[in-house]
Amino acid sequence: MSVTSPRGFRAAGVTAGMKPSGHPDLGLLVADAPCSAAALFTTNAFAAWPVRIGRGRLVGGTAQAVLVNSGQANAGTGRQGEDDALAATGALATLLGIDPALVLPSSTGVIGERLHLEELTAALPALVRSLSAEGGDAFARAIMTTDTVDKQASAERGGYRVGGCAKGVGMISPNLATMLVFLTTDAPVPPAALHELATAVLEEPFESLTVDACTSTNDTVLLMASGAAGGDPVVPGTRAWAELSGAVAEVAESLLSQLAHDAEGVTHVLLIDVEGAASTADARVVAKAIADSPLVKAAAFGGDPNPGRVLQAVGSSGAAFEPSAVRAWIGGVPVIEDGHIARAYFDPASDVREAAKLAMVEPEIHIRVALGVGPGRSRAVGCDLSYDYVRINGEYTT
Amino acid sequence: MSVTSPRGFRAAGVTAGMKPSGHPDLGLLVADAPCSAAALFTTNAFAAWPVRIGRGRLVGGTAQAVLVNSGQANAGTGRQGEDDALAATGALATLLGIDPALVLPSSTGVIGERLHLEELTAALPALVRSLSAEGGDAFARAIMTTDTVDKQASAERGGYRVGGCAKGVGMISPNLATMLVFLTTDAPVPPAALHELATAVLEEPFESLTVDACTSTNDTVLLMASGAAGGDPVVPGTRAWAELSGAVAEVAESLLSQLAHDAEGVTHVLLIDVEGAASTADARVVAKAIADSPLVKAAAFGGDPNPGRVLQAVGSSGAAFEPSAVRAWIGGVPVIEDGHIARAYFDPASDVREAAKLAMVEPEIHIRVALGVGPGRSRAVGCDLSYDYVRINGEYTT
Repeated sequence: MSVTSPRGFRAAGVTAGMKPSGHPDLGLLVADAPCSAAALFTTNAFAAWPVRIGRGRLVGGTAQAVLVNSGQANAGTGRQGEDDALAATGALATLLGIDPALVLPSSTGVIGERLHLEELTAALPALVRSLSAEGGDAFARAIMTTDTVDKQASAERGGYRVGGCAKGVGMISPNLATMLVFLTTDAPVPPAALHELATAVLEEPFESLTVDACTSTNDTVLLMASGAAGGDPVVPGTRAWAELSGAVAEVAESLLSQLAHDAEGVTHVLLIDVEGAASTADARVVAKAIADSPLVKAAAFGGDPNPGRVLQAVGSSGAAFEPSAVRAWIGGVPVIEDGHIARAYFDPASDVREAAKLAMVEPEIHIRVALGVGPGRSRAVGCDLSYDYVRINGEYTT
Repeated sequence: MSVTSPRGFRAAGVTAGMKPSGHPDLGLLVADAPCSAAALFTTNAFAAWPVRIGRGRLVGGTAQAVLVNSGQANAGTGRQGEDDALAATGALATLLGIDPALVLPSSTGVIGERLHLEELTAALPALVRSLSAEGGDAFARAIMTTDTVDKQASAERGGYRVGGCAKGVGMISPNLATMLVFLTTDAPVPPAALHELATAVLEEPFESLTVDACTSTNDTVLLMASGAAGGDPVVPGTRAWAELSGAVAEVAESLLSQLAHDAEGVTHVLLIDVEGAASTADARVVAKAIADSPLVKAAAFGGDPNPGRVLQAVGSSGAAFEPSAVRAWIGGVPVIEDGHIARAYFDPASDVREAAKLAMVEPEIHIRVALGVGPGRSRAVGCDLSYDYVRINGEYTT
């Protein structure tokens, strides 16, 4: 149930002393040999150095190791940040006896703060020595920042194993920014096919997650395929491709759910499904508009159905639709009909409002919107806005 | 210091009993004769009936009366909402003895709830009877919802008087949505010129305000010109135009500031100035991205300078810029230089961090960002994200 569940990978995690908390802060994931690798990176213009270096090193679609530090994001650090990341991955490559171009750096933590290079390099020998095929748990714990639990998942289909772990208390956490997701499989997938699989299977779920609409400087979703399961190369259009895609999707969905349920200050997860949009892009815009609305999020915290806030968010989303055709449900209860709040909602004799209230106190609150325009559909996964979110992000340094 | 400061207007406000709180909830502003009128309305696709009716009635640029109810937004109410608004303004027109097409409806309150037409029409005779040239204060109080204070301003330049009042605890409040702004002047301005003046002078300040990035279904900024000051028509390119524009801008700035300082749960107002953008539109996007960032807003609540959050917001805004040229200041203290967090910020020997902290505890927090690309500049006016915002919006109905 970890990144080392698939054959061909070893991992480790140690405390290098870079995090004030004294928790594990340096993780390493290594494939037995150079293998296919594909990644989705943040679109933030101030992408951190590990992201920028990783983009370059993944051009050929091959990698062998990932070195992750938690505590310092190495974003907003200027040229010095590049030197630091190159020094760290270079030192690791020497110890592993591999080409530095096969080592991907990954960082999460305070933006603007340099890597603690001295502690990091001092910890590398012990980190490498502790690599093991049972090291997935230690790796998953070492990449955590303000996460309250580690997040891991695995699946097996068609003889291929897929494993993964993630961190990130939402898309971004206080000073300790970033969602990092690492997935492994032992399926033999050529680099180009793996890139296609990552885009097709991983982009939608991880793009659907929003805690506070803030895109971190370090967000990374990395998928590595060791090929240790053997057999023919897995390529699109085959049964093996379908099996592997299913297993990767299963792991992704599990990690996504674990991330949402550990979001900062979360008391309810929001599942926003939009259908009937003119396009998938429009559906995504509407779903995100609802999931990101501070008013909807605060209403979810307070257990108030308040369909007017859903109407407001849809109406200002900018997506194309005919207002009078819009319908919406909270937990299956119809609250918007033909573009207006359901009459029964304000009728004291009706139980619609009470039913919607009950749906709002569930751990997962489902809101469904039908735009009635076209075939576009999308889901956004969000969370409520609680006192704790404000406390964590507001009083963090005081 | 009210909408009745300019000559040619009378106003009134009464308690019709439509608001559960029992506070004044029906306001009326009337010009002595049909006069020039121009308005900026919400862009929300679910625009309320008063907005949709107002748009139609203002096509010719003439109006004489505005009837404002607080408590019910008459948005999301279906066709019934149109009938209700037409009935209300029709009844008022009969009492005033004027063409119903000269009466503008305006509503603020719960989305989805119908107008309380019986109470409203019953209160109209007393409302009309109490109209007076000193009625501006009563009008300003009658349009309030969860506002804690009424918001009024006036100015006089070149012999022209300008008055105004506003409500809205931000761009949108809990169930009681909406920013409403009413401005009057006694300058003689033809309809087309008044529309140009409203667009030129009022759009930027009121668009710069953001409390929670939520565009209400009812937002309205209305400007009426009675012409009671006499003299030549005020048209663009004249000295009189400049004087009048200055006076209108002065009143708008005052109301804007009053709105920001009464935003829901506000403890600090955010003034975000962006310069050096490729365009005004880009500058606005960046300014709004910072002002709307829950992380920046929570940091402002906690008094934490946290320049990484400004960097994150700028980087994910989508505006065009060269990251390595970006600079930023918090209260005049340089915190981002050449696209990275200022080195001194993390230097214990430097007082940069302490100076930035001091700037964060001011009632108004100034954040300035220079993108270094072009001449585009814009300001966003926002506020922090506090426990009270969550309480007001989350526990409202519980």
